[in-house]
Formats: sequence, C-alpha cells, structure tokens
Amino acid sequence: MNAAPDPARLSLNTATVREQWNLAQMIDACARHEIRGISPWRDKLAELGAAEAARRIRANGLTVSGLCRGGMFPAADAAGRRAAIDDNLRAIDDAATIGARCLVLVVGGIVPGTRDLEGARAMVRDGLAAILPHARASGVPLAIEPLHPMYCADRACVNTLDQALDLCDELDPVPSGDRPSGAIGVAVDAYHVWWDPRLPRAIARAGVARLLAYHICDWLVPTTDLLLDRGMMGDGVIDLRALRALVEAQGYRGAHEVEILSTRWWKRDPDEVLRLVRERHLRCS
Amino acid sequence: MNAAPDPARLSLNTATVREQWNLAQMIDACARHEIRGISPWRDKLAELGAAEAARRIRANGLTVSGLCRGGMFPAADAAGRRAAIDDNLRAIDDAATIGARCLVLVVGGIVPGTRDLEGARAMVRDGLAAILPHARASGVPLAIEPLHPMYCADRACVNTLDQALDLCDELDPVPSGDRPSGAIGVAVDAYHVWWDPRLPRAIARAGVARLLAYHICDWLVPTTDLLLDRGMMGDGVIDLRALRALVEAQGYRGAHEVEILSTRWWKRDPDEVLRLVRERHLRCS
Repeated sequence: MNAAPDPARLSLNTATVREQWNLAQMIDACARHEIRGISPWRDKLAELGAAEAARRIRANGLTVSGLCRGGMFPAADAAGRRAAIDDNLRAIDDAATIGARCLVLVVGGIVPGTRDLEGARAMVRDGLAAILPHARASGVPLAIEPLHPMYCADRACVNTLDQALDLCDELDPVPSGDRPSGAIGVAVDAYHVWWDPRLPRAIARAGVARLLAYHICDWLVPTTDLLLDRGMMGDGVIDLRALRALVEAQGYRGAHEVEILSTRWWKRDPDEVLRLVRERHLRCS
Repeated sequence: MNAAPDPARLSLNTATVREQWNLAQMIDACARHEIRGISPWRDKLAELGAAEAARRIRANGLTVSGLCRGGMFPAADAAGRRAAIDDNLRAIDDAATIGARCLVLVVGGIVPGTRDLEGARAMVRDGLAAILPHARASGVPLAIEPLHPMYCADRACVNTLDQALDLCDELDPVPSGDRPSGAIGVAVDAYHVWWDPRLPRAIARAGVARLLAYHICDWLVPTTDLLLDRGMMGDGVIDLRALRALVEAQGYRGAHEVEILSTRWWKRDPDEVLRLVRERHLRCS
C-alpha cells in the first residue's frame, strides 16, 4: 500500500472551477482552503494581468505549479506558424512573471482540412525548437503534455509519454553520463496517460529531471463527452495512488495539480468543489 | 501517391448497417452491390444460426473476413472468467462453421468496481492462452484487436498494436529463423490505431503472418460520441491510403473490412450506405 500524499503538494488548476470564479477569487479560495499551489490558464491570467496576478499569488504564498498553456504549433502556412511561436514566446514571458515552475504545452493537432499527422508532428518539433532558447534564457522549463490519443486530431498530436520524451531527447540531448538540462520535459496528466502499457517504463525513462508537472483527475465509466466529462479523483478507474508512486519513485517532489474539465463540477458551488478536491487528494490519490 | 485499392477486397462488417438489416438481408445486399466479403457480428449470426448463415454465405460466394467478436475475458471471479472462455470456445466453433478467416477479439476492460488494469491485462493473457489450443485445432486464427485507448476501461485493455504483438509473441513464440504459426495475430482497425506514433514500426513488426484483418472507417472532427460517431472513409482525418500502403507493404492481401458504428449512418437507407461504402473504399482508402 502506498502512502497518502503530502497535502502541501496539492495545486489547483484553474480549469477545475473556471466557470465559477475569476483568478482573483481562486487565489483567495486557495488561501481559504489551505491549498498551497495554483496553475492558471492564460485566459484567467489575462483577466487580471500577469503582473497583478504575480503580486496576489506572492502575497498569498502560493506556488505556481505551471502556466496552462502554450503549444498549438501546427498551422496552415508559415505566417500561422510564426504567430503561434510568437504567442508561445509571450506565454514564456508570462510564466516567468508569475514564477511558474513550467509552461505546459498542448502541442496542437492536425492542420484543419488535411490528414497530415506526420506533418503536424514535424511542425510541433520545429515550434518547440524555435521557442526553447527563449524558454531557457527565461528560466521557464517547457513541459510537453502528451494528450490522450482521442485528442490527436484536434488538440495534441503528441499522445504518449515516450513520444514526448523522444522530442525532449531530440531537442535537448543529454550528454553521455550527464543529466538533462531541465529546460524541457513533460507534464504527466493521469487522465491522458493512465491506459498506456508502456507507462511505468516511460516514467522511469523520464526520470526526475524531465518530470516537470503531475496532473490528476479521474477517468469516468461511462465517459459521456470527449472533453468535458473528466472525473473527480476516486470517482473513476485510474489507480492514482499507484501512478503517484511511480512518479515519486523517480524523485518527483513537485505539485499534484488537480485539473478537472467537467460541466458537472462547473455547476457546483466552487467552495464545495475545493473541499472535495482536498479530501479526495488525500484519500484517493 | 499510393494506388487505389482492389475493389474485390472490400468486405462489409455487419455493424455498418446493423440497425437496418438482418444478416440474410446483408448477404443478399453484398451480392447486389458486388461486395465480395462479409464479417458478421455474433448477434446477427445468432438470428440466422451459423449453419444456415454458412449456407447462404457460400451460395453467394462471399469470403468471411472475420467473425466479430470473441474476447471480454476479465471477470470478477473464476466462474465469470470460465464462462467467458466457454463463450469464446463457442465463438471459435461458429467461426469455423462459417469459414471465417479469423475470430476478432475485443479483449475486455477493467473488472467493474476495480481499478486493476494490470490484473485485467493478466486475465486477458490467461484467457487467450486458454482458448488458443481450440482455435489452433479448429483452424481459426485469433485476431487480437487493439482498441483505441478511450475504450481501455470498459471494452479492451489492449490498446496498441505493439501491446497486441507482445501478447502474440508470448503466447505463440516464433522459433528463431522461423515464421509465426498463424494461429494468433492482430486485427488492425484504422480507427483504433491511426494516432499511434509507433504504428509504422508496429505494422512492420507484425509482418504478414500476424496481420489477420484490416478494418477501416474514419475519425471525425469533432467526434461527438466515444462509441457511435465513427465516420465514413473520407469524412475524417485518417490517411487511410497511407495506412493501407503500410499494411500491404508487409504482404497483406486480405480484406478491407468496413466497420462504421454510427447512429448517423444507421438512420440512412442501407443500400445508399453500401453504394457510398463502395465508392469511398475506392476513392478514399
């Protein structure tokens, strides 16, 4: 039996209560519920402005476990790809301003109107290569988030942890006998990777230097919507405690970030949601 | 540019028009539309009886590209697992009766009420091992169908082609320098595997001796239902022609079986559906 998690590692991804609160309310709520970490999406950050958000986050002593999200590199033409890269550079700046531990990257899917998966994957690699120097100079690690294969077409064509690690190794080669630089790594989201038969090996392959973020929620049976029917920890089939053990066995000591995109939970009182998030984090993850 | 497919390889999986027709009607329709192959699901076969179905299929000169489906091995207790195995043995007999080229296996998901993915995968391996001797003796190859990871929890915990091939290699080891026996292999369904970054390597690894079936349909954007929103070839994002080229490059010369589970297509006139299936098979696959 694996041990219960450290409650101090809990972090709130703003997607979890995005329909109920703005970022200022979420920052206050984290303090109220003794949640020590937060991970804003950029739409919420934009409402408040990065500088003001940073001030409030610091004033409440919160850790910023990540900024969600950069990525979305594939585009139909060079101008579109350039615009995506520019947007990512701004996201890196925002991540630096708020002291985020990483910029989470949802890399983007196939260019609409095409069937060119290989081409999309090449655009992702090129986009990552284009933003890595600025990320490195800014001290903002890039966390490639492999998304569940059901999002391959329209959200992210990086769909396994091994595939994300292949990109890391290509863009940030590890000198023989040395450790990865830490400039690029992965965000492991339980929802996206739990099914993968290669997962234990891939987490071991990542090692602590590439494990930049750890997100949790649960896979419901049945799942009624591809995007907005994610479950509260404990309500689904993912063995979250075993998964955390794999990540922590590599030395990961970062946040356990709760990210639940769910029309169901968005209808609930957000204080009630956060109480349950705290309880389920301890009991079911 | 890859060549158009051989129209003689088109096969109709009965799921495609299951809400409109019974098996007898489908057999007649295949003859009428010059579709040379058929692959019945067991519910349709049961309506007619395997012996009578076999007679009608032979009378119309159809190839049976597979019987759908065995599998569903995981169960809460030994009696449940035994019942699943017995059901698979009967499916093997039915497959032999109708001269099916293989028995397609949807292996089953996690035992309800548990989070034991590893346990489910072990039950699948044990179930396959239990039925393989009867399949071998009956001359019915077992085709493990890796299902899309979004079905991992409730339908199939074998989710990549490599994972299916690992099972094949474990249960039917290939003597050094020899070829696989042909008793067990895989069903490659475009819908389930198209996203896999390892797919080209895995198809090459399978080789012709393990490639027992090839199913096609398309992945729609957006996909509005996890199970019943599969697309007609050409309506989605899968590069079916490139995928077929990979399979045929290994020497696969079996059927191109069209299996579209879709509430949308089930509402249409089935003769119209089959006309479009023929046209799209040629033009978009």
